[in-house]
Amino acid sequence: MNSKPLKRIIVAYLGPRGTFSEQAAEKYFTSSKVYLHPYSSITEVFEAVSMGKTIFGVVPIENSLDGSVHLTLDLLLETDLMACGEVELRIVHNLISRPGTQLDDIGLIFSHPQALAQCRRFIEKNIPQAKLSQTRSTAEAVEMLKEIESAAAIGTDIAARENKMEILARQIEDDPQNFTRFFILAKKDAPVTGRDKTSLIFTTEHVPGALYRVLEVFALRNINLTKIESRPERGKPWKYIFYLDFQGHRKESKSRKTLGEMRKRCIFVKILGSYPIASQH
Amino acid sequence: MNSKPLKRIIVAYLGPRGTFSEQAAEKYFTSSKVYLHPYSSITEVFEAVSMGKTIFGVVPIENSLDGSVHLTLDLLLETDLMACGEVELRIVHNLISRPGTQLDDIGLIFSHPQALAQCRRFIEKNIPQAKLSQTRSTAEAVEMLKEIESAAAIGTDIAARENKMEILARQIEDDPQNFTRFFILAKKDAPVTGRDKTSLIFTTEHVPGALYRVLEVFALRNINLTKIESRPERGKPWKYIFYLDFQGHRKESKSRKTLGEMRKRCIFVKILGSYPIASQH
Repeated sequence: MNSKPLKRIIVAYLGPRGTFSEQAAEKYFTSSKVYLHPYSSITEVFEAVSMGKTIFGVVPIENSLDGSVHLTLDLLLETDLMACGEVELRIVHNLISRPGTQLDDIGLIFSHPQALAQCRRFIEKNIPQAKLSQTRSTAEAVEMLKEIESAAAIGTDIAARENKMEILARQIEDDPQNFTRFFILAKKDAPVTGRDKTSLIFTTEHVPGALYRVLEVFALRNINLTKIESRPERGKPWKYIFYLDFQGHRKESKSRKTLGEMRKRCIFVKILGSYPIASQH
Repeated sequence: MNSKPLKRIIVAYLGPRGTFSEQAAEKYFTSSKVYLHPYSSITEVFEAVSMGKTIFGVVPIENSLDGSVHLTLDLLLETDLMACGEVELRIVHNLISRPGTQLDDIGLIFSHPQALAQCRRFIEKNIPQAKLSQTRSTAEAVEMLKEIESAAAIGTDIAARENKMEILARQIEDDPQNFTRFFILAKKDAPVTGRDKTSLIFTTEHVPGALYRVLEVFALRNINLTKIESRPERGKPWKYIFYLDFQGHRKESKSRKTLGEMRKRCIFVKILGSYPIASQH
């Protein structure tokens, strides 16, 4: 006897449990029918969605302090997955330790390299004696506290709670304007809502004025660019690939004309998806 | 009796000994009067030059695979130091271990996170059993081998030689098109040679067409941009700061006119320096 499958929507996110990607997934998917499943790398999240194991995936795409997540951009170029949504998350770092630990006791601080860098001034001022040790995620850093004494981790309050650790200091990040933006991945992008954004990647010829002529197609139509970022193209030193977001949905007439003109002026254009603009924090 | 100081030129570089920054300094400064001195962070290299402890400093500015070194850009914005030269280095990664170690013996691989990432495919194929451990530099990774058995490090041949270790495999990087560009820092930039490049940082208003209007000043004069890169501005989420290199010296008449026009169209322009273009690899 075949029973009907449960109508649960499975969402892959960059784990382990307690990461910012999990927080982002919780913020975006509020239905009780949604089941969040951690994967141990961004590559595995992409694979889960590509192979149909999950319908959606949640991965970081950029941080307001550190810029783009290059691996996510690489995989968006290589695969056919699209962005069907975005979510922004304020990044709060906490100093976490075993219950009863004092600041002076801390000889070692674990965290993801970015989190350590983002709390550099706090550490220098308050825990100058501590050595730093890098982990693959802030969640893994908090788990390390179970093994090692006289240590602290920088991580989320969820991870502190789940590991029964204590928060010694909250919001220790040097710059409170610290946001990470996540993409919701799927096999298709989202329908037109009237308040959308489109993400794309392009390359131009390496001649004077090439980028200028591409931006012209947006400037002439008064289309707002919400992001432009360039990075060296893999395998082609000092040639640049551009990542751009503009306001509008790729299926709207104004966007279609703009994109048509853009293709004439570029070597390569790949649309990553159109999706509703995330509400501000 | 005062004796005359020795006429040695001291150059600060991002250490420890055996880093790519040391290799870059050796490639750029070939005079026997030059004495290279390692400092343990990019910040300390900047401080050494600012405080007059050394005349020059050598720091990485960007990698062809990973993009800009954000800390170097931040410090160029914050301090008055200028770029007076550039040097490019092909990045070669080697698998290094204690003499007599076999691939199958390796349980742990140490290196800088970027080096581990750049050799990911080699490791997965040849040493799938190994765990990865991050260090602050490739030089530190090679030093770890003195302490720990059944391990390998990814690092330079100089570091292997200095630590009396063996190179198990050469050029293990997944993408051979891997170059890092370094800036030579000083209190002044370089005089006009006729074959120069200028680096600058700028910000624009956040309105449609703002970047387009800035690039126009270069396009109209047929000036070649050799690099443009944007990144989020610290403290202002999703506002972008642009880093740009163009061919020409800031003291040449065409550049002066271009820069004058550019200042009218930007909120902020900071010239990082003009310097002779590095010879190609």
